Amino acid sequence: MVDKTFYDRKDNVTLADVAKVTDSVLQREDKASLIIGDIATIKKATDKDICFFYDRKSKEAASGMNALACVTTADLAPLVPKNVVVLINDNPKLAYIKLNEYMYSLRKPSPGIDATAKIAKSAKIGKDCFIGANVVIGDNVEIDDNCRIEPNVVIEQGCKIGKRTRIAANASIAYAIIGSDCYIYSGARIGCDGFGFQLINGQHHRIEQLGRVIIGNDVEIGANACIDRGALDDTIIGDGCRIDNLVQIAHNDKLGCGCVIVAQVGIAGSCTLGNYVVCGGQVGLADHLNIGDGVQIAAQSGVMRDIEPGSVMMGSPCVPFKDFMRQVAFLQKNSTKK
Amino acid sequence: MVDKTFYDRKDNVTLADVAKVTDSVLQREDKASLIIGDIATIKKATDKDICFFYDRKSKEAASGMNALACVTTADLAPLVPKNVVVLINDNPKLAYIKLNEYMYSLRKPSPGIDATAKIAKSAKIGKDCFIGANVVIGDNVEIDDNCRIEPNVVIEQGCKIGKRTRIAANASIAYAIIGSDCYIYSGARIGCDGFGFQLINGQHHRIEQLGRVIIGNDVEIGANACIDRGALDDTIIGDGCRIDNLVQIAHNDKLGCGCVIVAQVGIAGSCTLGNYVVCGGQVGLADHLNIGDGVQIAAQSGVMRDIEPGSVMMGSPCVPFKDFMRQVAFLQKNSTKK
Amino acid sequence: MVDKTFYDRKDNVTLADVAKVTDSVLQREDKASLIIGDIATIKKATDKDICFFYDRKSKEAASGMNALACVTTADLAPLVPKNVVVLINDNPKLAYIKLNEYMYSLRKPSPGIDATAKIAKSAKIGKDCFIGANVVIGDNVEIDDNCRIEPNVVIEQGCKIGKRTRIAANASIAYAIIGSDCYIYSGARIGCDGFGFQLINGQHHRIEQLGRVIIGNDVEIGANACIDRGALDDTIIGDGCRIDNLVQIAHNDKLGCGCVIVAQVGIAGSCTLGNYVVCGGQVGLADHLNIGDGVQIAAQSGVMRDIEPGSVMMGSPCVPFKDFMRQVAFLQKNSTKK
Repeated sequence: MVDKTFYDRKDNVTLADVAKVTDSVLQREDKASLIIGDIATIKKATDKDICFFYDRKSKEAASGMNALACVTTADLAPLVPKNVVVLINDNPKLAYIKLNEYMYSLRKPSPGIDATAKIAKSAKIGKDCFIGANVVIGDNVEIDDNCRIEPNVVIEQGCKIGKRTRIAANASIAYAIIGSDCYIYSGARIGCDGFGFQLINGQHHRIEQLGRVIIGNDVEIGANACIDRGALDDTIIGDGCRIDNLVQIAHNDKLGCGCVIVAQVGIAGSCTLGNYVVCGGQVGLADHLNIGDGVQIAAQSGVMRDIEPGSVMMGSPCVPFKDFMRQVAFLQKNSTKK
Repeated sequence: MVDKTFYDRKDNVTLADVAKVTDSVLQREDKASLIIGDIATIKKATDKDICFFYDRKSKEAASGMNALACVTTADLAPLVPKNVVVLINDNPKLAYIKLNEYMYSLRKPSPGIDATAKIAKSAKIGKDCFIGANVVIGDNVEIDDNCRIEPNVVIEQGCKIGKRTRIAANASIAYAIIGSDCYIYSGARIGCDGFGFQLINGQHHRIEQLGRVIIGNDVEIGANACIDRGALDDTIIGDGCRIDNLVQIAHNDKLGCGCVIVAQVGIAGSCTLGNYVVCGGQVGLADHLNIGDGVQIAAQSGVMRDIEPGSVMMGSPCVPFKDFMRQVAFLQKNSTKK
Repeated sequence: MVDKTFYDRKDNVTLADVAKVTDSVLQREDKASLIIGDIATIKKATDKDICFFYDRKSKEAASGMNALACVTTADLAPLVPKNVVVLINDNPKLAYIKLNEYMYSLRKPSPGIDATAKIAKSAKIGKDCFIGANVVIGDNVEIDDNCRIEPNVVIEQGCKIGKRTRIAANASIAYAIIGSDCYIYSGARIGCDGFGFQLINGQHHRIEQLGRVIIGNDVEIGANACIDRGALDDTIIGDGCRIDNLVQIAHNDKLGCGCVIVAQVGIAGSCTLGNYVVCGGQVGLADHLNIGDGVQIAAQSGVMRDIEPGSVMMGSPCVPFKDFMRQVAFLQKNSTKK
């Protein structure tokens, strides 16, 4: 199913290869040399393809499976039709990721600096970087080895970018120090001025924003997302964070490690999030909040107070998840009474 | 009222022309040769201008109308002052669209490829396309005839663009097949990686996204909107969809024909929308939902479950519109009781 | 704390200078010649730095202050440790702004037009403008003196830009007249087509948008925000407005002076906002609403009706703030009853 116009594919991958690459146990040794056509979803897999079955919710689809082979758990295996070759794996989703990585690859541009890129003389570019057309790189910028800076990106003076970091098309970066192995998606805006001003005699007097954005290692920042720089102190995004498209992170926010911030979330200024905090889509946080480690906030919730570590919250204003469900049930029941 | 700095205007348009172009019946044949100045709103129209009156809510404004002429329905015509020349039309809004198109036009750039555009040798560009300054077009891209690709757009390798499609300034397109007569607004991000990863030993392990974005014919994608590509399967936008600014459409979503998705809506991954689904502004959908044909979801609603065709829903979590109104009334009434 | 990689700093600023610049009264004349290291937050200030204490909520942090000096009010001064030199000021936040502006400055690019900028022959560029790399400026555009147009910006035909206005990287501007002293952030989309169409025989027929965007003086438009142009009439943003990142302002909206529109707000078409209206983050307004002067709308609220001047509203659909709080309390109390 994967379109070879866009992706490269390894040919002649056998079921034995699949078993090896994914650490699965092939149930039919006589089928070991069969070559798989493609990785496919359960529904679309033909009798040449391999699919992955790890969610019991898909059991109906699984029962009608037409695949050549299927990687699944010992528990789910009995639900797979007899004619499909089964490979047993404790974690078929991880197996899927591994086979994906083995079999397909995104095309990467070759290292090199496009003739139209405008790079300040004082900037330092590491080894084997790709710098695309019309990229603009300001004074004293430092870009480490193996980075990929796509067309029409603007990186303003003084920024530092770690190894193997990718900055996608049309993004703009300012006042930022970005770690290694990061991926800034296209159109992301890193380091813009925070929304800071003071009303003086009827005029919103601008407060110059003098901080930075510090982004750790292995961070993703989604398409058209905005991370404002700090006012005086810095805005900080911890290692391993995943920030989705169209998210707003305001000045002086500090995110711990491994946070997952789903699309269109807005976090007002000076909030502190612990490690592995999860915000569902369109969540909003008021300013100056402390959100503990491992907190999970359901989509569209509005947060007006600090949250203790490990809490699961929902609603606007948000309450513990169970309380929210109780409120919903109460309202539905009582509003329809005569 | 239309500013000729920005738009071209046909001069010497008479009331007879208006009647003809809009299929209206002119009530005063003796006025047929009068030339109209401009199309204007009811409030701003001077005694040289024509206006359109189709909403009874505007009856107060209509009673004070100073226009030369007014296109309106037979029903509303008695509300128009005597000195205004009336043209009767069953659908004055459609008449407005027709006169608009007849009388004014947006300036289009002449076909031609700007010298600064960077087009891969293997790319194919159709006849009479406009390719603006600093456009970057990757390997094997195919752009059909009469397209308009505005400055600073990036189109990555392998993408296909149908006839007469317009891609506005600073947009970026990747892993996408786009139909004819589409309009991708400025800053839109088509084909970015879906938000896919798996937590393994405390690290969010990236799942390579190997699908595409397939966009039908006559589709609009708003400014700074994001349409992620599929993980394995494709993200699909059906013919005739209208997607507003700052909308997020996640990996593997499938929209039917004619859907209207208002600004800042977020649709999580693997949702299926039928035909002519309407989502009001800031609506959020959880992942893996099925939304039936013709469903209407009011602004700011949150959708957590499948919705039957034809339903009208509101609230977060959303319920049928009437139930929501009952909840609002119940809450307002009971919360203020002593 | 301010990183001199990114900002310029005035050295040798003494406490006497601070007192003068900020109109503060230095409590220890014997310390007047001491040179301050940096401006810092209360928590991070070392014994060489100056900090500002104006919020009683920070009193705990203030009691452990290690700063050289602190600007605070007469009321709060007793909470500052004895060894810190105190400067008394009625408005320490304003003092902070003043010292900030005196001591630090953002680096501005020198005037000049980059060789790669593509400027139409009919365009007029004022004195001492900076026009960055790959900027594209269309026919008959007029840019007044001292403007700063950053790399990869696109300004389409006919637009006018007032004095000292800054348009940041990768923004796009069309059909717009922008005042003086404005700041359009990176990735903002000004003047795109409004979301206008009419369903005719199952097809969403496009309504050509023929208006403009008129932006007053001293306006800020945030990163990746979208301001659509009017359909026939104009979209208008009054003097002194502050519009945050990722905001959507639709066709024909009219904002008065000094409005504050926080991140991710969406205002549907043809709304009129008075002066100094404040919309918290993620607020949504339905179309054709009138919002009075000085109205404050709390974050995430949904507005479906007109609002009287001076009202403070919350909820979706929004109600007066006190009513909302009563609803929240009622629901929490009653939903948990047996």
